[in-house]
This record gives sequence, structure tokens and C-alpha cells, in this order.
Amino acid sequence: MNPILAINLPEVLAEVSAAFARYEDALVNNKVEVLDELFWNSPHTLRYGTTENLYGYAAIQAFRAGRPAQGLQRSLRKTVITTYGPDMATANVEFQRAGSAETGRQSQTWMRTLEGWRVVAAHVSLLA
Amino acid sequence: MNPILAINLPEVLAEVSAAFARYEDALVNNKVEVLDELFWNSPHTLRYGTTENLYGYAAIQAFRAGRPAQGLQRSLRKTVITTYGPDMATANVEFQRAGSAETGRQSQTWMRTLEGWRVVAAHVSLLA
Repeated sequence: MNPILAINLPEVLAEVSAAFARYEDALVNNKVEVLDELFWNSPHTLRYGTTENLYGYAAIQAFRAGRPAQGLQRSLRKTVITTYGPDMATANVEFQRAGSAETGRQSQTWMRTLEGWRVVAAHVSLLA
Repeated sequence: MNPILAINLPEVLAEVSAAFARYEDALVNNKVEVLDELFWNSPHTLRYGTTENLYGYAAIQAFRAGRPAQGLQRSLRKTVITTYGPDMATANVEFQRAGSAETGRQSQTWMRTLEGWRVVAAHVSLLA
């Protein structure tokens, strides 16, 4: 079935929302093992961060291991999660870091793998 | 079938690559009607640009109509297109605008609709 005929199926949306919430908790609390778990372990996975472009799971994992564990708190301003059929989703959020007036944007594409939902591509930036 | 069992099927990758190339041509040549065609006509569609966050197809279309038609040339530095099953894909690219030393990043999630491949979410930013 074409995914356009199954946008935001309630059970799929609930699953992705739970995975997204788990990722956000891991991010602000620096649970690196959960961040690693929730990215797809594949050379195809990529993450554009505010200051780096990372290609492949290994590069993303090395970046996580080396990042500072402080100053990670942030508030989500606007979250849009959309699911396309049973197995694919996007999660887009505007956020604000503690002590900063800048607006951040985080985009993720999620895929249901055999082990659960995983981020297959991500892009984080600050609004210019 | 879970999409992880059908990553980068050659015929799907060829279709998305052709749609991506058509979008890039439309972008640098300001073919607004093609840009409009290739974004999913849905209130769920969103686009984070370098200087704006646009929610819904109507907002994106209004932005396209109002943007300057000059200075759109850019070079693609690195392109990664990945397909997940028959109907979903991501296209990520690093680019450089003519006359600028900055590195841009463009991330798109594509979906096969009944009318063809469409961008359902996009994020464009400059590397800080």
C-alpha cells in the first residue's frame, strides 16, 4: 500500500512519538548508549550537526563519545511528527538551549528496523 | 516487507535520483512551478530554511513565489541518496553557493505518492 494512504496511523504515531521522547531524554541527560542505540547502525546513516557533517554510524558514534556532557538542556518549542505507512516517519522540532535566544531546528527521518525504530538521517542547525 | 530488507533497490534509487536532479535543476533555474510540483501538497509538509521555518505546503509555496530569482547558482559537493523499501527515501547534499566559502547542507525526505515522488520534509542550513 502506498504510504500516502496511511499517513499518521494512530498506533504508528504513538510508537514513533515514544521513540522520539526516549531520544530527547537521552540527549539532554547524555545517555550516550541510548543515543547510539536509536541511530541506525549502518554506513548509510548520516547526521548533519550545527558544526559537523558526519557520514556513517561509526562517525556519529565517535562524535557522541567525544562531546561535552554539560550544557545539554534544551526546551522543545514546536514538534511535528508525521508517519508514512507503517515503517517510516519524520520528526521535526524547534528548540531553544538554556541561556540562548537562538532557535534550533532538529530534523530526523526514522525507520522501523527489525530491532525497533531507528534514526536513519538527521540534521540539526540554528536559524540564521 | 520491512524497508531495512530493501535498502537502495536499484530501480527505486534511479527514480529518486532522477527526481532529485529535477529538483536541483528547478532550484538553480528558479522553475517555481517544478519546485511546487515536487513538494507534497499537504499541511503535513514542512521546510526549515536557513532563515525561516515553514509549516504546510501553502507556506512553502508562498515563500517560493516571493523569493529573489537571482543568485541561485550553487555547486553540489557531496550527495547521498538512500532509499528504504519501494516508497521512501532521503537525499542529503553539501553545497556551495557561487561566491561564498560557506558549506550548505540540504536534507530532504521523499515519499512516493500516487502522482510520483514528492518531498515531505526538508531542512537547509549553513555549517556554523
